[in-house]
Amino acid sequence: MRILVVNPNTTASMTEKACIAARLVASEGTEIVAVTSPSGPVSIEGYYDEAMAVPGMLQAIQSQQDFDAVVIACFDDTGLDAARCLTDKPVIGIGEAAYRVASMLSNKFSVVTTLARSVPALEHNLHRYGMERQCIRVRSSEIPVLELEDEGSGAVEKIAQEIEQAITEDRAEAIVLGCAGMVDLADKLSEQFSIPVLDGVTCAVSLCESLVRLKARTTRQGGYAPPPAEKIRSCLV
Amino acid sequence: MRILVVNPNTTASMTEKACIAARLVASEGTEIVAVTSPSGPVSIEGYYDEAMAVPGMLQAIQSQQDFDAVVIACFDDTGLDAARCLTDKPVIGIGEAAYRVASMLSNKFSVVTTLARSVPALEHNLHRYGMERQCIRVRSSEIPVLELEDEGSGAVEKIAQEIEQAITEDRAEAIVLGCAGMVDLADKLSEQFSIPVLDGVTCAVSLCESLVRLKARTTRQGGYAPPPAEKIRSCLV
Amino acid sequence: MRILVVNPNTTASMTEKACIAARLVASEGTEIVAVTSPSGPVSIEGYYDEAMAVPGMLQAIQSQQDFDAVVIACFDDTGLDAARCLTDKPVIGIGEAAYRVASMLSNKFSVVTTLARSVPALEHNLHRYGMERQCIRVRSSEIPVLELEDEGSGAVEKIAQEIEQAITEDRAEAIVLGCAGMVDLADKLSEQFSIPVLDGVTCAVSLCESLVRLKARTTRQGGYAPPPAEKIRSCLV
Amino acid sequence: MRILVVNPNTTASMTEKACIAARLVASEGTEIVAVTSPSGPVSIEGYYDEAMAVPGMLQAIQSQQDFDAVVIACFDDTGLDAARCLTDKPVIGIGEAAYRVASMLSNKFSVVTTLARSVPALEHNLHRYGMERQCIRVRSSEIPVLELEDEGSGAVEKIAQEIEQAITEDRAEAIVLGCAGMVDLADKLSEQFSIPVLDGVTCAVSLCESLVRLKARTTRQGGYAPPPAEKIRSCLV
Amino acid sequence: MRILVVNPNTTASMTEKACIAARLVASEGTEIVAVTSPSGPVSIEGYYDEAMAVPGMLQAIQSQQDFDAVVIACFDDTGLDAARCLTDKPVIGIGEAAYRVASMLSNKFSVVTTLARSVPALEHNLHRYGMERQCIRVRSSEIPVLELEDEGSGAVEKIAQEIEQAITEDRAEAIVLGCAGMVDLADKLSEQFSIPVLDGVTCAVSLCESLVRLKARTTRQGGYAPPPAEKIRSCLV
Amino acid sequence: MRILVVNPNTTASMTEKACIAARLVASEGTEIVAVTSPSGPVSIEGYYDEAMAVPGMLQAIQSQQDFDAVVIACFDDTGLDAARCLTDKPVIGIGEAAYRVASMLSNKFSVVTTLARSVPALEHNLHRYGMERQCIRVRSSEIPVLELEDEGSGAVEKIAQEIEQAITEDRAEAIVLGCAGMVDLADKLSEQFSIPVLDGVTCAVSLCESLVRLKARTTRQGGYAPPPAEKIRSCLV
Repeated sequence: MRILVVNPNTTASMTEKACIAARLVASEGTEIVAVTSPSGPVSIEGYYDEAMAVPGMLQAIQSQQDFDAVVIACFDDTGLDAARCLTDKPVIGIGEAAYRVASMLSNKFSVVTTLARSVPALEHNLHRYGMERQCIRVRSSEIPVLELEDEGSGAVEKIAQEIEQAITEDRAEAIVLGCAGMVDLADKLSEQFSIPVLDGVTCAVSLCESLVRLKARTTRQGGYAPPPAEKIRSCLV
Repeated sequence: MRILVVNPNTTASMTEKACIAARLVASEGTEIVAVTSPSGPVSIEGYYDEAMAVPGMLQAIQSQQDFDAVVIACFDDTGLDAARCLTDKPVIGIGEAAYRVASMLSNKFSVVTTLARSVPALEHNLHRYGMERQCIRVRSSEIPVLELEDEGSGAVEKIAQEIEQAITEDRAEAIVLGCAGMVDLADKLSEQFSIPVLDGVTCAVSLCESLVRLKARTTRQGGYAPPPAEKIRSCLV
Repeated sequence: MRILVVNPNTTASMTEKACIAARLVASEGTEIVAVTSPSGPVSIEGYYDEAMAVPGMLQAIQSQQDFDAVVIACFDDTGLDAARCLTDKPVIGIGEAAYRVASMLSNKFSVVTTLARSVPALEHNLHRYGMERQCIRVRSSEIPVLELEDEGSGAVEKIAQEIEQAITEDRAEAIVLGCAGMVDLADKLSEQFSIPVLDGVTCAVSLCESLVRLKARTTRQGGYAPPPAEKIRSCLV
Repeated sequence: MRILVVNPNTTASMTEKACIAARLVASEGTEIVAVTSPSGPVSIEGYYDEAMAVPGMLQAIQSQQDFDAVVIACFDDTGLDAARCLTDKPVIGIGEAAYRVASMLSNKFSVVTTLARSVPALEHNLHRYGMERQCIRVRSSEIPVLELEDEGSGAVEKIAQEIEQAITEDRAEAIVLGCAGMVDLADKLSEQFSIPVLDGVTCAVSLCESLVRLKARTTRQGGYAPPPAEKIRSCLV
Repeated sequence: MRILVVNPNTTASMTEKACIAARLVASEGTEIVAVTSPSGPVSIEGYYDEAMAVPGMLQAIQSQQDFDAVVIACFDDTGLDAARCLTDKPVIGIGEAAYRVASMLSNKFSVVTTLARSVPALEHNLHRYGMERQCIRVRSSEIPVLELEDEGSGAVEKIAQEIEQAITEDRAEAIVLGCAGMVDLADKLSEQFSIPVLDGVTCAVSLCESLVRLKARTTRQGGYAPPPAEKIRSCLV
Repeated sequence: MRILVVNPNTTASMTEKACIAARLVASEGTEIVAVTSPSGPVSIEGYYDEAMAVPGMLQAIQSQQDFDAVVIACFDDTGLDAARCLTDKPVIGIGEAAYRVASMLSNKFSVVTTLARSVPALEHNLHRYGMERQCIRVRSSEIPVLELEDEGSGAVEKIAQEIEQAITEDRAEAIVLGCAGMVDLADKLSEQFSIPVLDGVTCAVSLCESLVRLKARTTRQGGYAPPPAEKIRSCLV
């Protein structure tokens, strides 16, 4: 099976990082195709970036012919609903994926994300997915997304500190890392704190494999009904 | 004061209709500047259209120099959060405006919108605004947005029928018309059914006037913090 | 237009303060008529005061012949529902008004009110208006209402301290001042903390102007149906 | 023990009916003292009546010296919060009492009340008590309160019809009768429909006995803190 | 009347403690019959214990012929729904009972229980009963259930400390003690902190007396419909 | 990998049906081990059956040495929380699995289950998983579980009829079949109605594979902390 991992921002190094993580978790026989959005912001931190990233991301999906499922590799699940209108293949956002996995492993979890400006958008998603009771708190480490790439930024320490507080103050039983750029930290932190620490990219790839094996299709009725072809055409001009 | 009315779809006749309605309700001394999005879908019916409409709409706002408040003239409040990041001037969506006015005039209301495919997006908005208990139901009349322009479409009759059911079945005390293209029907229907029937364009213009008089500013902290200038520049390229 | 500002407590100096604030924000052509309740408590701090204030307040409204909208100038929106049964002119409480304005300017806000005993009543209102997710916390400064009139009470400092905590602990993006007696502090505090700090009296006056311009009427169906005339007569005896 | 049953409306025949029902359910050794509000509306149907009834009802409570608990004998729990500020003796509303009993006997129940205009106030109460999921629906039989006294009004038939629909349409497992004036119907209807049909007066008297035996006291902290004596005095003038 | 108090764990000394407390609060003429579950865990701390305790507890109920109501004397209301299917006599859990009493005496309360591992189960119950807004927080004192029996364990001090924090941090107006083994502490702590401190056993006994006097029956429709006799027989083999 | 499929009722033919369905969806290299509970009810229809089934089911799990994940093959997710305390291997209930898959494929779904008496238990689960907004309605077809095995029962027709109503009345975009015994109907009905019709057994097996590939472990902190070994021993005696 072929899973399309779309990075909705334009930073190719983040796409690559996500791709490596995706391949590590993918089953034998699953091919990971990673694409970078051709246009939009270099990172997604808040509502404006999110909105500007969607058309490029949708274009990246439409440019691909042959895939069995789509992973949207940004933690705020950029354009998830719009993407589901474009294809009946399963589409999963990495935020959604991590939340759903966390909710099958724990009673309550906290999220550790990058900047405070991203928190309200994540809280709205959590509410939409019905996770407002299982997710106790969205914490921000105040590390910009692109600094996660930089070894000297002290990012890991700051994230670890927030996890520690989530365990003692929020009584979190699991942690969700709130940025695709943290994908390489999950295992280490999980071991360090002896609770599940989840990354969205791997969760989403694995859930996509599940849905494909189930031959599951996104509904074509109601909110995800496909837009008329002429509308799609006119938007792409 | 100058209120910018942005039509996030590209159909100029709808912009004009909204503009006329806006001017009718505006106070003396309020200038209405109506702009049409330069790119994106011809009408907004569901998630895909909504997502594709945002960049054009934001560009339309950014192209204007001088305004005191912004009305987003699409009932699903397209790109409202992103627009609030771009300016500290008040920004109001017409869906939000109509819901807030309805909730000051009644205990419970129902919405009558166009197509079923738009309903889930509206329901998510209602939840986000905390209106999920005051709004009893979102009804769809199954009239496409652009047919509202067409006299022979039987649109008014179908909408009236849904209102009647909202009153008897939902026990609605007020009605919100769920499309900018219905702006000219509110008064007539309100009289016909002897309950408040609200249109979003006029509600939003009037609430904008309020906020401007209050010298109210959108917060610059948290989720609406302005994106760094270089990010805005890079997105616009 | 004529807006009736009713102070539901019997302290005339508070009526005057509200009246001055109302006039400052009112549009040209809007006349503010301020009335003090003829009977009931000198200040409204909690459920008992609230209940005892309503008949006097309703009588104050009924004694007026000619108005286009009513502002109830007590932050717990004393008797709002009952007042809406008495007239189809818009009636807005200052608590409600401030919450609705705050929710159009920010993702999340906190309230700073007077005494702890008032907090549960405000929390019930917030829930009723659907604001329980947007309002993070109702904080009490432990300043009795009437001490707000007294320069030497240290009231401003205590309120400022609560605002500071609301920003750092609650991650509030805006603040609502929870008492009509704080009306003169909003601008100063807003500047000091660089976030919207809202007062209910000005918000309510301005929203009333909006509703009047919209020719909006309180519904006469359901919960706000007018009581039979003989019942009103018998209650007034 | 002495239980004070306060009728917040001024119709003495309803007080007597409630008193008879209360005595039937009271334990040996429990004295029922029934008082009628000295002023206010003859029946309570909606927000206005409710607000106008409270001061008379509070006065009726304050006029009594010696009681162990208070039942507020109106289904919208008129002035319940205010009454709890006046005494640390338990105070229970008949609406609240019936809801709490229903929730110990069934998974879900429906309410059958008098007029549609009363429904929103009841729905707000249900929400406040956390009953919004256990109560499926508040149905109105469109019988005015005082017609319940009138044998020829067809009231019983209309109520029975609503119960039947509640069972089939709402899948209600129990029914709450939503008016003090229906107190004499509960047993008959319960037998007729083979599900619990509950009346608030008897539920409240019985719960009061429980609370008195538990030596339970209404908290004096927070929202129910007693108002200062001088404030109570000034309100009574 | 005869009230059956079932201890769902197998520790007879806890049954006895509950029985003594039950008898102290019971009315004259009420007989308390206390039974210990014949099989299952020695104490109930978390989901596993709870699940393993239910069949023994149901068997203990079925072994009794003659009772008017049942109290399930474990704070997580072990097997409450299942027990309600077995008899139309009222069945009340001590957790449920204490929550319902607390909600009639205060606006908001906190719970102080034993171990952190029990907290999620209690939170689920609170949600199910609609108490998630009235209960601010479930605190754990980290005292194992059986250590409550041990004078030297410092249990009372730890519980008192949590109550103190509940009052200052949670603004709790009342406290619910979250374990049947704390039944003897309620009065002392209530006096010490001048707010209602409630124990479930006494609350449940007293509410049972109410329900019996009301001749209230658990519904036989829907979720509490009795299982077919042959199923009960086959399960007991 | 080895997935343990536990049938919590004692009907071996249902275990076999689930096992066949599980094998059809399992990946190459996944071994399905299906076990039947050694004691308890022959089918699970409501609270009593559910409670009586748990110890047998937990024993069935404990009797197995070597597995990588557990599927609880009853739609009410019998004993899910207790099972998660016994092992850090992922444990998924088939109800939970189907709801989570449905929520990744649609905005809103309805459930079609067997008997009305099971509905409240399912509604409680849905609430606990945060699905109360995404699941519009739980419908019962009034077919007892074991009649699903019987060709002449008209079961398929009754289920199809409920699906049809779910689409037209509930505006469901997907359907979840609410009983393990319906596992063989999903594909056919999905095709017939052109929307996703999901069965829990296949969803759960596939999600288990995901979690195993993710090396995900159930948290050992908080509500799922393992009970002390001596407690487990004592319960098993």
